[in-house]
Amino acid sequence: MEQWYRTHVDQIEQYLSACFTEDRPWQALYTAMRYSLLGGGKRIRPVLTMEFSRIVGGNPEKALPFAAAIEMIHTYSLTHDDLPSMDNDDLRRGRPTCHIRFDEATAILAGDALQAAAFREVLSADLPEDVRCRAGLILARAAGEDGMVAGQVLDLAGETKPLTAEELEQVHKHKTAALIQAAATLGVIAGGGTEAQIGAASRFAKALGIAFQIRDDILDFEGDVAQLGKPIGSDVESGKTTFVTLYGLDRAKEMLQEQTEAAKAALIGAFDDIDGLLWLSDWLLERKY
Amino acid sequence: MEQWYRTHVDQIEQYLSACFTEDRPWQALYTAMRYSLLGGGKRIRPVLTMEFSRIVGGNPEKALPFAAAIEMIHTYSLTHDDLPSMDNDDLRRGRPTCHIRFDEATAILAGDALQAAAFREVLSADLPEDVRCRAGLILARAAGEDGMVAGQVLDLAGETKPLTAEELEQVHKHKTAALIQAAATLGVIAGGGTEAQIGAASRFAKALGIAFQIRDDILDFEGDVAQLGKPIGSDVESGKTTFVTLYGLDRAKEMLQEQTEAAKAALIGAFDDIDGLLWLSDWLLERKY
Repeated sequence: MEQWYRTHVDQIEQYLSACFTEDRPWQALYTAMRYSLLGGGKRIRPVLTMEFSRIVGGNPEKALPFAAAIEMIHTYSLTHDDLPSMDNDDLRRGRPTCHIRFDEATAILAGDALQAAAFREVLSADLPEDVRCRAGLILARAAGEDGMVAGQVLDLAGETKPLTAEELEQVHKHKTAALIQAAATLGVIAGGGTEAQIGAASRFAKALGIAFQIRDDILDFEGDVAQLGKPIGSDVESGKTTFVTLYGLDRAKEMLQEQTEAAKAALIGAFDDIDGLLWLSDWLLERKY
Repeated sequence: MEQWYRTHVDQIEQYLSACFTEDRPWQALYTAMRYSLLGGGKRIRPVLTMEFSRIVGGNPEKALPFAAAIEMIHTYSLTHDDLPSMDNDDLRRGRPTCHIRFDEATAILAGDALQAAAFREVLSADLPEDVRCRAGLILARAAGEDGMVAGQVLDLAGETKPLTAEELEQVHKHKTAALIQAAATLGVIAGGGTEAQIGAASRFAKALGIAFQIRDDILDFEGDVAQLGKPIGSDVESGKTTFVTLYGLDRAKEMLQEQTEAAKAALIGAFDDIDGLLWLSDWLLERKY
């Protein structure tokens, strides 16, 4: 991992570690929220927020509440997706999932509270009111009934029937790409970028989000429990449609390459100083982490 | 029900009925959200938003997105509270609960999406950015880890052990009063009221919220399934601490009276034209609906 990425991650981890630490009668809620939020991961979404804020000339520290909000939304979605009535996963990043470590009610409530906390973070950031308001609205749309939650509904529906190529794209456009797009655009907005830069960041992040999902499908097919922290080939076993089951492994790898190139192309001309983001795109592609 | 209340309710129902009606591939999500959101109820929270907006000189129609947001948060909380791992209720207002009518995953996701939609409503309202931003932040705090969700955590913990008077107050201050306070203050903010009026609305709503909960405990003790849409004396049966089990029925009725008087007192001097809100307080007290 390159130093710039590590620097962003350190700041994000430090910020998140300071959340939900007060002494409260509802300690159990805070404990579960922190358990989910501080469970590791690459922090790619908040890193995008920080880096886009930096490359448009902003101070990344000012973007920290936006970055934290994105990670809180992502974490809540994982916590709920893992529940028995959804994906029913016992492990996440090699640790028991929230409902296994605590119980179902606690996992549901921790997710609910993380979602509200995300909006609290965005709306109380040390940035102008119009910036906070716009960022909050982008986040609400990305997370909500026409964004991430829609994607999870389509994904669950896809477990009981084969999906077409178009349907599979709809799943990932909503389930994965929408929040990654919000992460990138919130960075541009926090840093005071132009409308053209917001558009470019959104295109970059959409392609990266799809690439990210194709990579996940390939890893699931090829991967092992040590790398992903979840059982081998679980998608194939469940009969779920993935980029690999739909297109085959070779074509999926080509598509991963194509999406990654599309992501990188979106940056050119819109921003200076894109070396970090270009490296990041390759890093995701090449699975060197 | 008085005409002014009915007028607000009609506007709110009309506004909510128009939500989540577009034709989408994730129709199932919209259907579940609408099922929960349009399941009736007195709509007391959004009515407070509309009425407080009106009495500080605002146009209640402008406050509709705030009112809708409050009802969406309330609805999501009921949908999640009813889940098997929480209160495990099959009936709500005489109808099957969302997870019974659909399934658990759908109920969790409908709730998640309603929460995001609430913030979308507030942040996209036709009101100045500073008003939207402040309202969104108040809503996030009221709904989140130090507000409504904290109350539900305390409430669930109270099912396995007797609560002290202080603990019971903490439950209802967070679980019920916080969102009712947000409903009232969002109305004042939407209508352009003063800081003193925001404070007075908050005090009114806090007392009303506690009164509301005491009334619920009394109704549960005395009530019948036709009136509440849930089984008789379910709190007593489960050994749960309520105002009635803690203080006895007579004292609980006195406390209900005291809180209602406190609510009414908070209005005097802060607002003109409080007849509607005074009537509302009595209406809740006297159970004439």
